[in-house]
Amino acid sequence: MAPKFLTGDKAGIDDFLNKFDVFLFDCDGVLWSGDHLFEGTKETIEMLRSKGKQLVFVTNNSTKSRADYKKKFDSMGIPCKVEEVFGSAYSAAIYIARILKLEAPKNKVFVLGESGIEAELASENVPYCGGTDPNLRREMKPEDFTNIANGSALDPDVGVVLAGLDFNVNYLKLSMAYHYLRRGAVFLATNTDSTLPNSHTLFPGAGSVGAPLVKAWGKEPLALGKPSQAMMDAVEGKFQFDRSRVCMIGDRLNTDIQFGIEGKLGGTLAVLTGVSKKEEFLAEDAPVVPSAYVNKLGDLLG
Amino acid sequence: MAPKFLTGDKAGIDDFLNKFDVFLFDCDGVLWSGDHLFEGTKETIEMLRSKGKQLVFVTNNSTKSRADYKKKFDSMGIPCKVEEVFGSAYSAAIYIARILKLEAPKNKVFVLGESGIEAELASENVPYCGGTDPNLRREMKPEDFTNIANGSALDPDVGVVLAGLDFNVNYLKLSMAYHYLRRGAVFLATNTDSTLPNSHTLFPGAGSVGAPLVKAWGKEPLALGKPSQAMMDAVEGKFQFDRSRVCMIGDRLNTDIQFGIEGKLGGTLAVLTGVSKKEEFLAEDAPVVPSAYVNKLGDLLG
Repeated sequence: MAPKFLTGDKAGIDDFLNKFDVFLFDCDGVLWSGDHLFEGTKETIEMLRSKGKQLVFVTNNSTKSRADYKKKFDSMGIPCKVEEVFGSAYSAAIYIARILKLEAPKNKVFVLGESGIEAELASENVPYCGGTDPNLRREMKPEDFTNIANGSALDPDVGVVLAGLDFNVNYLKLSMAYHYLRRGAVFLATNTDSTLPNSHTLFPGAGSVGAPLVKAWGKEPLALGKPSQAMMDAVEGKFQFDRSRVCMIGDRLNTDIQFGIEGKLGGTLAVLTGVSKKEEFLAEDAPVVPSAYVNKLGDLLG
Repeated sequence: MAPKFLTGDKAGIDDFLNKFDVFLFDCDGVLWSGDHLFEGTKETIEMLRSKGKQLVFVTNNSTKSRADYKKKFDSMGIPCKVEEVFGSAYSAAIYIARILKLEAPKNKVFVLGESGIEAELASENVPYCGGTDPNLRREMKPEDFTNIANGSALDPDVGVVLAGLDFNVNYLKLSMAYHYLRRGAVFLATNTDSTLPNSHTLFPGAGSVGAPLVKAWGKEPLALGKPSQAMMDAVEGKFQFDRSRVCMIGDRLNTDIQFGIEGKLGGTLAVLTGVSKKEEFLAEDAPVVPSAYVNKLGDLLG
């Protein structure tokens, strides 16, 4: 079915909002772009809260913990509680701690990523190594090949490799991660977004930073971010909602909107302030089509 | 047809060798493994030379120039001329200089790789940047996002991105390469091997190091190493041989042997001292089957 265009359609907006009790929001490209807050974002959030809607901010950004992410909301002047934030790093930590449940001490996680992942693993009492360890931020030396090959440079307790967005990725960390996989570690990713919006353009995303492991190892990781339904299950487990009364709002068809459709939510709303263009879902053979769309989130103010 | 097993078959070996005037050799996994020279390698090379055969050492290793690679032969005690070495970095340089022929000054190459690529580009008078530049061996800073996005950190003359094995790959170089691609640069790779043999095991190869660009950009590069026929054309262009009188010797079915088969060479010979196992080509549905195989190269001594 063709998506309903809601911008300027006050009655249509009211109808649409009344169908849902819970709104899952993607953040970057929906609420803001980088450090630029979109016009009407704050007022729309306030309007939805005033109507008693439950809001959950679902982000694939794995570099930030939920606490870090709340600071971003604070800096943008949008009221938000840490409990309303659900990031892919947190989703991965929950999966490892509560679903994978590897037996200690063989449950250590080798992290390809930033402090946000480390903080979320710590919050679930999952041991980890790699990540922001300054000893690994260096050039690969000849002896590293030997010591990784014979295992003396590897931690025997590592049972999981978790790949996220690592701005300090290097050949040494990739080699270690690859050898942990060869030794049987479970291969997980916070998310597999190919790109990351920044400075009004795109940069390599978590899926691109982790691509060397996929290529070398020849297998895809289980991804815990959108559109993976592992993340939807985790969100539902925490917020206990009726999926038919939930709407996913996002700018990316192949992550956000697909996440909502595959999760059999009551509806999905696309905004045109981010990555995907309306031509992509208005095309006759479009593979992913939202229930409705607006030019920008603030258009929901009517 | 099932491949002929030549180890211990003196008459079969003589017949096989008589069919060819030229032997293309893969090096690592065939002549040696890392710093370990296989038994009989030196004597086999000498035997082939004494029979008047032309030898060409065709390697996907892009970190070394032909001159660097000759030093490896020297250290192993195998006589070899620089002209007999044909590496993927050289193959790429020839392609850029003689086939792509972009108009100066818009013909600069942004290199993701080591000094071997730089040396080969210089040998063909191709201008380059990136590569081993020490200014790029650092952490991505917030202003880098801005300056790459607005182009002020990019060289306007770059017309090619060449991805090879870069032991100093980092987010900054990947971001720059990605933005050169977005600005229209031609996407090339020295080779796309997923792994690199070292220390009797495997490490991430050039194809893995360049995988972030493929994932972020969404398109594969033109690869100039085995099994790309662009490399075969370059080898033939230099050595002017009759393909029906040429044999490719290698350890990898999906690079070396496929390279020879697709190139319609007179024959291919697999050795079992490297990556591929005989079970892979003896299987009934094997996609790539050599003409013959030996346990090790030295078995050709009979």
